[in-house]
Amino acid sequence: MSDIKVTYFNGRGLGEVIRYLLKYGNIDFEDIRIEQDNWPGLKDSTPFGQLPLYEENGKVTGQSVAIARYIAKKVNLAGDDEWQNLEIDAIADTITDLRLKLYPLYSESDAEKKATLKQALLLETIPYYFGRFDKYISKNNGYLAANKLSWADVYFAIALDLFNVFLEINVLEKYESLSTLKKKVEELPGIKEWIASRPETPF
Amino acid sequence: MSDIKVTYFNGRGLGEVIRYLLKYGNIDFEDIRIEQDNWPGLKDSTPFGQLPLYEENGKVTGQSVAIARYIAKKVNLAGDDEWQNLEIDAIADTITDLRLKLYPLYSESDAEKKATLKQALLLETIPYYFGRFDKYISKNNGYLAANKLSWADVYFAIALDLFNVFLEINVLEKYESLSTLKKKVEELPGIKEWIASRPETPF
Repeated sequence: MSDIKVTYFNGRGLGEVIRYLLKYGNIDFEDIRIEQDNWPGLKDSTPFGQLPLYEENGKVTGQSVAIARYIAKKVNLAGDDEWQNLEIDAIADTITDLRLKLYPLYSESDAEKKATLKQALLLETIPYYFGRFDKYISKNNGYLAANKLSWADVYFAIALDLFNVFLEINVLEKYESLSTLKKKVEELPGIKEWIASRPETPF
Repeated sequence: MSDIKVTYFNGRGLGEVIRYLLKYGNIDFEDIRIEQDNWPGLKDSTPFGQLPLYEENGKVTGQSVAIARYIAKKVNLAGDDEWQNLEIDAIADTITDLRLKLYPLYSESDAEKKATLKQALLLETIPYYFGRFDKYISKNNGYLAANKLSWADVYFAIALDLFNVFLEINVLEKYESLSTLKKKVEELPGIKEWIASRPETPF
């Protein structure tokens, strides 16, 4: 039995970045998936009512991005120095900023308001961020930060997958550099095999 | 002239955690403050249309939490090992989660809706998070993580200050451990002198 446990819902979502990084590093872990029906009974026992959780040697913590950064250091996807780590962290937090801008679309039930939100995302927010990410990729040798593959790229590939699901279109169609980076991550050893074998879920 | 520049609006906000950490570490920096009138002309030149910015040796990055983590390593307010860094990062991201839950209050213009949002924050959200932060402080020797003073505590003190401004009451009245931690941060060498001498701004 592995001493590392990753607990998340039965989906990709915010748990998948942790799974990708562990698979990339060939680190064995228990992939615990909570069905929605069982979540209300478990929610209160988590640190702040959220998943994913990461457990190692009996110690548990939440927060997907913090966990991703921690695992990245084990699997050699962190920066080579502290400035590189800052660049990687800043891009990761910017990906989170963009991710959070998509959430109102998910929680809006009024069809007309939802359509308006979606238009704003597709015509303003996404082009603004993607245009800037494209420039970072040009400047960083095909990656988002620090001139090399880092955990920010892995987080980005996961986030782009979620954006496609949320927006119900391929948001990457017009952004070749982003699309290429996503594919590069999905072809990485460990991650490629995981994608081929993981449980199929809608998101 | 200092080779470190911190650029933010003329206020505390998300720039203040960077200023606190630099002051604590006795690191000289140029405290550049952008007036709202000048912001539209500058916005497009920033990495993602946001402040604060941090500049060191001519290199610039955004994202306040990423910058705080970077400076924390210089001033010895990071963890002693990677698990401690994970604990500190997870608490910092949880502080951000709570901070973002307060933003709708700021952007809501309808007085009735604003009052409803405020009640939910004061009666549900804040007690939920503060009750759990209180348990972390009990378990961690009076600090939020890693049994010692860290940059998460500094970020927390700043966030609590913002919560008081947003909610127009002292949110800490019922939470002695949180109040004590905030005071402890505000009494730290460098930070104490900064608070006494910094420009006075509403938030």
